Amino acid sequence: MTKPLRVGVAGLGTVGAALIAQVAAQRAQLTARCGRGIDIVAVCARSKAKNRGVDLKKMKWFSDPVELAGDPGIDVFVELMGGSGDPAKTAVEFALASGKSAVTANKALLAKHGVKLAQLAEKSGVALNYEAAVGAAIPIVKTLREGLTGNSIDRIYGILNGTCNYILTRMEQEKLSFAECLKQAQQLGYAEANPAFDIEGHDTAQKLSLLASLAFGTKVDQSAIYVEGISSIAAADLAAADELGYRVKLLGVAVKTPQGIEQRVHPTMVRKESSIAQVMGVTNAVTIDAKGINPITLIGPGAGGAATASAVLSDIADVARGQKTSPFGRPTASLTSVRKAPMQRHEGGYYIRLMARDKPGTAASIATRLAEQEISLESIVQRHPKDGPSADTAKGSVPVILITYATSEDGVRKALAAVGRDKVISGRPQVIRIEKN
Amino acid sequence: MTKPLRVGVAGLGTVGAALIAQVAAQRAQLTARCGRGIDIVAVCARSKAKNRGVDLKKMKWFSDPVELAGDPGIDVFVELMGGSGDPAKTAVEFALASGKSAVTANKALLAKHGVKLAQLAEKSGVALNYEAAVGAAIPIVKTLREGLTGNSIDRIYGILNGTCNYILTRMEQEKLSFAECLKQAQQLGYAEANPAFDIEGHDTAQKLSLLASLAFGTKVDQSAIYVEGISSIAAADLAAADELGYRVKLLGVAVKTPQGIEQRVHPTMVRKESSIAQVMGVTNAVTIDAKGINPITLIGPGAGGAATASAVLSDIADVARGQKTSPFGRPTASLTSVRKAPMQRHEGGYYIRLMARDKPGTAASIATRLAEQEISLESIVQRHPKDGPSADTAKGSVPVILITYATSEDGVRKALAAVGRDKVISGRPQVIRIEKN
Repeated sequence: MTKPLRVGVAGLGTVGAALIAQVAAQRAQLTARCGRGIDIVAVCARSKAKNRGVDLKKMKWFSDPVELAGDPGIDVFVELMGGSGDPAKTAVEFALASGKSAVTANKALLAKHGVKLAQLAEKSGVALNYEAAVGAAIPIVKTLREGLTGNSIDRIYGILNGTCNYILTRMEQEKLSFAECLKQAQQLGYAEANPAFDIEGHDTAQKLSLLASLAFGTKVDQSAIYVEGISSIAAADLAAADELGYRVKLLGVAVKTPQGIEQRVHPTMVRKESSIAQVMGVTNAVTIDAKGINPITLIGPGAGGAATASAVLSDIADVARGQKTSPFGRPTASLTSVRKAPMQRHEGGYYIRLMARDKPGTAASIATRLAEQEISLESIVQRHPKDGPSADTAKGSVPVILITYATSEDGVRKALAAVGRDKVISGRPQVIRIEKN
Repeated sequence: MTKPLRVGVAGLGTVGAALIAQVAAQRAQLTARCGRGIDIVAVCARSKAKNRGVDLKKMKWFSDPVELAGDPGIDVFVELMGGSGDPAKTAVEFALASGKSAVTANKALLAKHGVKLAQLAEKSGVALNYEAAVGAAIPIVKTLREGLTGNSIDRIYGILNGTCNYILTRMEQEKLSFAECLKQAQQLGYAEANPAFDIEGHDTAQKLSLLASLAFGTKVDQSAIYVEGISSIAAADLAAADELGYRVKLLGVAVKTPQGIEQRVHPTMVRKESSIAQVMGVTNAVTIDAKGINPITLIGPGAGGAATASAVLSDIADVARGQKTSPFGRPTASLTSVRKAPMQRHEGGYYIRLMARDKPGTAASIATRLAEQEISLESIVQRHPKDGPSADTAKGSVPVILITYATSEDGVRKALAAVGRDKVISGRPQVIRIEKN
């Protein structure tokens, strides 16, 4: 039998501790399944004194992750520190350059430096695995990198951020406001004290950039992504969506268009019956539309120590077995630059909620502005609240909800700008894109 | 660059033809992604004259699959003929024995001879890949074999037969009888002229036997599976399930119990909110419960030419890249014999629908018999049809629906036998197991 694989782990937060516990618990099975043992022989973290609930006694301690990455006593460097900069970046680079495979859960690092790191791995003939970086325990990276090698993918989209999905789920189910749900999510530890990175869609965008590269063979390019978060979503939108047969999810979507690859993150209306609409709470999900076959959807835990460690360990096991695929599923030299499809050219259905001034001519004015942009309406609902005037109607406005047939983003923006200039609405119109699925 | 991988395909039905078309369409991408070309250089089928809509001109023609399997001009033998016996069996054996990797979509062959074939592959140091044998395009084999290498799996269950799920979906949505839906499924080509293999659960059982082996490291053993089909399911059951917050699905379930591995195929009540309950029509799905993490569910097309070919091609691509895992994820020698947990020891909730004779003492009698077996009831509903007496009530019977708390199969069977002897019900009781999820 081959010698055990010697693993060095940098970063001993919840994921690192869970990884050490899982390797210990699964020792015999891992040896049988990989044809060799997996030994965590060295670790690195800030505080040696901290009790992490796992036994580190037999492991060599490093206080500098870059030093660990270069240590000749390890075969694989596992980076669980996070962050797109140093020390993670230099440590992973150093490991790859010195002929060690690297495993990382770090989406930020890969979204920013993925191509360069992949080139380094290729040059050294080692693996760069990152199953945990998207959807944690969901085997989406392996599925795209190896499973769908012979498929032409038209579109990939997913719920990639548990915090946002948790908030939207609570808002919908309990008819609460965004602010209330965010507060509760923070109390429960599902949202950070500074939640902007999650709720403004940036976390989703980083993950989407990796999925898009794997799906379409393009160079990771986070800057090509249009990003909109969920903080503008109101309970009224979720109620309207429900009535219309939709749910609102924060999706990351990457799709082939005649203009190039359209990559976007925004609140999205999805048909209630779709697999992705059913995904509630902190759970993540990804749907792949490959040419000629019905969609494939993968659902599972997208965060948490054990779920992330599970993916990290599967990456380590691939290294132990000697399995090695190009980090983005193709030789790095064959990755193409993203031909960015501009968001103005996006085509799709739209949900538009306006507060229309309750006076003669308003409806005609709105309808005219939409018609000028050749926007056809699938439905239009104007609602006078049953329970007497609300705060809005008190101001002499009534909510109007429009659903358009497929039209262009540009047309919608122009039409709404014109409606605004006509002074027939109060406040800003709410616009949510509808994703066909 | 390495020489192209030379592939021989035996069986040119819808899957074989779709595979040839997909390899042709994806030629450049496959070469880039695998680091070498994939060439289908030889084929074998019964009729050379038949028009299959694909170009076979450059391929060597064989009329004997075993001869193709032994041909030195191929590196991989792809078996798409089906059937657990010959010629598939001998051909795959011959390919493996002569040092060629084999790819097959043949669940029947693997359910019966999987261990022996895996031993052969191991001895020759070649791959035996069968992603298409379970859930077609769903990457479930790869996920279990490679993705969850370091996880301890507690339970795996799935909708593995599209015909049954199509019938149950139509019955539920359109309140039709089983017989009507089966007929329509046959007309649409979703069910065979002789549908017994599908609707009696045997197709599901063959697939489950493979999943169980992959999940638990046991030798494939179809005979260890308890099998019950869907032909007894009535529209009344689906309506009652709906009211109680459930859907009825034909599930294959394999679960670790203190008694051993319980493997069973039967109509199952699943909570409507679960991912698996949402899977409608011919779509397949598998849920994996691994220790310490929330469930992972994979959903996708479980049949059809293109979907099956997609999985076959991903298997071929793995061979082209030189990736090779043990066929069941572990060395064959380490696969354990199934310690079969007897169905009588099954513990779970039960849905029971009885036609109770409408006379004093009936309810007391039924309740007593259940109590004797220490069965606790979560709910009991006795319904006098609103629209006047039905065919049943005309006979002086009323439907009674019982939901039990977790109890043993043995207890339920004994209690119902006693109820039968008491002559307080007419007809056979309907029993559907409830799966916690």
